[in-house]
Amino acid sequence: MTRISLDQAQTIVAAALKEGRALALKPLSVVVLDAGGHMVAFAREDNSSNLRPQIATAKASGALALGMSSRAIGEIAIERPTFITAAAGLNPAGIVPAAGAVLIRDANGNLIGAVGVTGDTSDNDEKAALAGVAAAGLSV
Amino acid sequence: MTRISLDQAQTIVAAALKEGRALALKPLSVVVLDAGGHMVAFAREDNSSNLRPQIATAKASGALALGMSSRAIGEIAIERPTFITAAAGLNPAGIVPAAGAVLIRDANGNLIGAVGVTGDTSDNDEKAALAGVAAAGLSV
Amino acid sequence: MTRISLDQAQTIVAAALKEGRALALKPLSVVVLDAGGHMVAFAREDNSSNLRPQIATAKASGALALGMSSRAIGEIAIERPTFITAAAGLNPAGIVPAAGAVLIRDANGNLIGAVGVTGDTSDNDEKAALAGVAAAGLSV
Amino acid sequence: MTRISLDQAQTIVAAALKEGRALALKPLSVVVLDAGGHMVAFAREDNSSNLRPQIATAKASGALALGMSSRAIGEIAIERPTFITAAAGLNPAGIVPAAGAVLIRDANGNLIGAVGVTGDTSDNDEKAALAGVAAAGLSV
Repeated sequence: MTRISLDQAQTIVAAALKEGRALALKPLSVVVLDAGGHMVAFAREDNSSNLRPQIATAKASGALALGMSSRAIGEIAIERPTFITAAAGLNPAGIVPAAGAVLIRDANGNLIGAVGVTGDTSDNDEKAALAGVAAAGLSV
Repeated sequence: MTRISLDQAQTIVAAALKEGRALALKPLSVVVLDAGGHMVAFAREDNSSNLRPQIATAKASGALALGMSSRAIGEIAIERPTFITAAAGLNPAGIVPAAGAVLIRDANGNLIGAVGVTGDTSDNDEKAALAGVAAAGLSV
Repeated sequence: MTRISLDQAQTIVAAALKEGRALALKPLSVVVLDAGGHMVAFAREDNSSNLRPQIATAKASGALALGMSSRAIGEIAIERPTFITAAAGLNPAGIVPAAGAVLIRDANGNLIGAVGVTGDTSDNDEKAALAGVAAAGLSV
Repeated sequence: MTRISLDQAQTIVAAALKEGRALALKPLSVVVLDAGGHMVAFAREDNSSNLRPQIATAKASGALALGMSSRAIGEIAIERPTFITAAAGLNPAGIVPAAGAVLIRDANGNLIGAVGVTGDTSDNDEKAALAGVAAAGLSV
């Protein structure tokens, strides 16, 4: 398997939003990018603010840009803020160094994409992202 | 009704993709933006090329930027290419002057967003967009 | 009511400037954006510096981008500066994390826009913004 | 007189909009910039599309950038399109090479700003701009 399918991406989006409702989170936005960082599916819940598409995308694109979760990028940003700021300037979609985006791997461990979530706290955003990946039978 | 809902947007996306399959079109990408030009829902079919999210968005964002379908913008671009090129440079999402994006209005005629489609010919892209709007019980 | 009207926006601008004169503030700049972040009305008092239009707009656009007042964004910026810096880079109009911009809601609590003020201290800018919203019979 | 006042700018905006209503034009957006190209006043009528603030500003800013009306810039753009495209890329607010913006001069012929109008045809936009300047007792 080399590319994430639209079916898989839509399953991830639906499950992440379902998790958000189950946890009574604030309105969420969820994006799924393929391994090249290009958008496959996106949804923004009612009453979300305007920049959520870009924030979700920058979390997920950053994860693919640096090969780690946006949580790990956030930890690096604390120790080496100028590195992450510089890297963000190089990535067309930017990088948001906060939890909520995780890499997506297939059954063979091959990287096939990333999912990014924003709308609630970073920790809660990440819970929704992980629920989405699990629902699609994929791993992080 | 003041803002397009995620439910409405997902109905439009699903119906546009269904129309694409019914007409045996090439893989499509479909975006729905709210009236302010901010993304609500997006889907890109398997085997689509990388820039499709940006092209779909630039068609729909351009429609909202200038207040007309991307087909009408394409017609203006033929007569006054420098105007459309200049306007495209002013719009953060750009403007793609080709059919495939239409404005979305509610039952009272209020503008609530735009849908943009890309992947096949511009004329076929527009057929899918129109099918999406109709399926949601909305008008252009 | 689906979109803020020019009449409402001009009432807000006039009342914010009047409040600035009543409090003997420095020259103010006041912008009103619709819910999508697009400018509806703007005024810059005599003897204001050059960047005031952009600062007022970045305060108000940031409020709409993240769904909170620019004062609240300023508080987040102290705790999580890298998040706000990253988000500012994603917003075409930027984000200024300082008091002076508030969201605008209609009688039904629907978000219809934001007003941003700059020129004096952030606290005083916010007083003028709030006076503007109140004068239009709207709420924050 | 070295700088245009807010009072003058608001007179120009109000008169341009009044002219638009008198001529039954489409919804207009009107901006007044000072001689440095910085915004003094702006208004966008109800039911205008999203990009009108940027188009009005790019017309007026372009006029100040090159020292002539946006109509004259449009004529140059036909003969030398690459020059205008290149110049537009150098101006932070861009340049829209179409009628609708005129320079503003005081009683001594000193340049004090520019007014830009968009929303109807370029010729009609310019009529509204000229009406605004005349109403303020200024000249082009």
